[in-house]
Amino acid sequence: MSSGSHIRNHNFQKNIVVLAGGVGGAKLADGLAQIMPAERLTIIVNTGDDFDHLGLRICPDLDTVVYTLAGVANPETGWGRADESWRVIEEVIRLGGPGWFRLGDLDLATHLVRGQLLAQGATLTEAIQHLCRQFGLTMNIWPMSDDPAPTMIETDGGLLDFQTWFVEQRWQPAVRDVHLPEDVRATPQVLTALEQADVVLLAPSNPFVSLAPILNVYPIRAMIADLPELVVAVSPIVGDRAVKGPAGRLLADFGLPVSGAGVAEYYGDLLDLFIYDQRDQTKPAVPELAVRALDTLMRDRADRARLAEEVLATTMELIAR
Amino acid sequence: MSSGSHIRNHNFQKNIVVLAGGVGGAKLADGLAQIMPAERLTIIVNTGDDFDHLGLRICPDLDTVVYTLAGVANPETGWGRADESWRVIEEVIRLGGPGWFRLGDLDLATHLVRGQLLAQGATLTEAIQHLCRQFGLTMNIWPMSDDPAPTMIETDGGLLDFQTWFVEQRWQPAVRDVHLPEDVRATPQVLTALEQADVVLLAPSNPFVSLAPILNVYPIRAMIADLPELVVAVSPIVGDRAVKGPAGRLLADFGLPVSGAGVAEYYGDLLDLFIYDQRDQTKPAVPELAVRALDTLMRDRADRARLAEEVLATTMELIAR
Repeated sequence: MSSGSHIRNHNFQKNIVVLAGGVGGAKLADGLAQIMPAERLTIIVNTGDDFDHLGLRICPDLDTVVYTLAGVANPETGWGRADESWRVIEEVIRLGGPGWFRLGDLDLATHLVRGQLLAQGATLTEAIQHLCRQFGLTMNIWPMSDDPAPTMIETDGGLLDFQTWFVEQRWQPAVRDVHLPEDVRATPQVLTALEQADVVLLAPSNPFVSLAPILNVYPIRAMIADLPELVVAVSPIVGDRAVKGPAGRLLADFGLPVSGAGVAEYYGDLLDLFIYDQRDQTKPAVPELAVRALDTLMRDRADRARLAEEVLATTMELIAR
Repeated sequence: MSSGSHIRNHNFQKNIVVLAGGVGGAKLADGLAQIMPAERLTIIVNTGDDFDHLGLRICPDLDTVVYTLAGVANPETGWGRADESWRVIEEVIRLGGPGWFRLGDLDLATHLVRGQLLAQGATLTEAIQHLCRQFGLTMNIWPMSDDPAPTMIETDGGLLDFQTWFVEQRWQPAVRDVHLPEDVRATPQVLTALEQADVVLLAPSNPFVSLAPILNVYPIRAMIADLPELVVAVSPIVGDRAVKGPAGRLLADFGLPVSGAGVAEYYGDLLDLFIYDQRDQTKPAVPELAVRALDTLMRDRADRARLAEEVLATTMELIAR
């Protein structure tokens, strides 16, 4: 895109706030971090997947975002760290402990340092800020809330913790409903980021279990609806299939088309611009919603920057009109 | 000792309860486990050193006893596991976390499995029982209490957590007093063991910071004082020096002779029999206390069994009188 060079010159003047879950959100955030000034980029991350395991607080989406932006994410698994080893978890299993959630040795260090900070009275926001500094990250990465906000999945087999459904049962039980807790409040950092935001970008994460939990945090949805400029979403669906994980499955379970069009219908009038994949069969059609087809697949780091640049350029074009 | 063979024949009829701290206590317990039936051996272990670190509950003395009896203890350090690696703690340090308490990768698995059980509502007693089963141990190893019972060390430099004084400051600050918490209660398992005990053996552990915390748990001291048969202590001092750790330092700080005699004086009339090292210069002299000199150094596994056998034989001789 011709306008990409304007973005890359580091005179970029817009504050971009990304709402992100794990892998897809982390990749697009990494693309943005490659092309725009860190001080204008904020990533607000889902904590609905967070859970306590082996006495540790685990924050899967936050850690995936931090690891991806720090360049230490495991490129094969989509979670955890590169160059990982498994000595501790193998011994945990030998000692009769649970092995279904694979905690690597390097990854464990994150949970221990976070656990130490939380035990000393730090907020989750402060603990993540510490980890970001240690990894040399200078953009803002904020948990959506410092309140516990566990997402529960109502399945044909009963109500399950998110990680039990997602990891232990490999998201196989059909979903009847996603339960999000009431009275979860945004942090001062999240409020400030949204007050100063020019563009809010819903990352190509799962709409139902990654982005809905963020939008459910008071008053995030209302602040986004009132945003002076643009709310943009990038579809997690490519050619009528989810790139990764259960997004397609959940669209079907909720009676929506398994396509970018289904995602656009789900977000509804919250959006100003919807970017769907050029491989999709159906063009999304929501009244008053601008839509653009792009190649949304991010195959490598350069591809993340390419998509980020195209998304920002499309957004700027729409703002300029 | 000629009577040793009577003990080794597994017709041994006495219930032995050992009160133990870390290394010295663990070694003598291992000697006993080699020569007597497991079902007659109970080890009650100090938890005054337990602390929370990196969000984990750490129980140094319990783990040393379990690892030593399971044959997986690190023979060089006196703590932690053999064949240990350090990948997690090195990453913790890289992420700005504390490195002064060296947690090995295999050792971490113990803390994680225990943390999981405690988080699920298990008592510390139940968590240790689980770990013992996993390590194939069949004698009873009980924490002195399921209540928190932190030992605090009053030094010239202020009041310190036990581990801060012992590990982080390498027990260098001079000790003015050892503070033991009030209202710590023994568990039903500890009460039953002491009710059924024929002999209570105070292991060659630190009298002030390993055994005093156990004797401080209600009603352990009173039950031992009322024991129908024998209360025996093995001195942790060899040739007027502590084999390991700050026992000598604390004897001096408390104005007692740095010798087995000083230890016997400290325990006073709680004991029936005191076993001191044959290298000591002074023979302990406490009214009505039987004393015997033995080679109390335990250089290897066989030596632990040798000392255990000599201690039991001496004890049986005194009972038979």
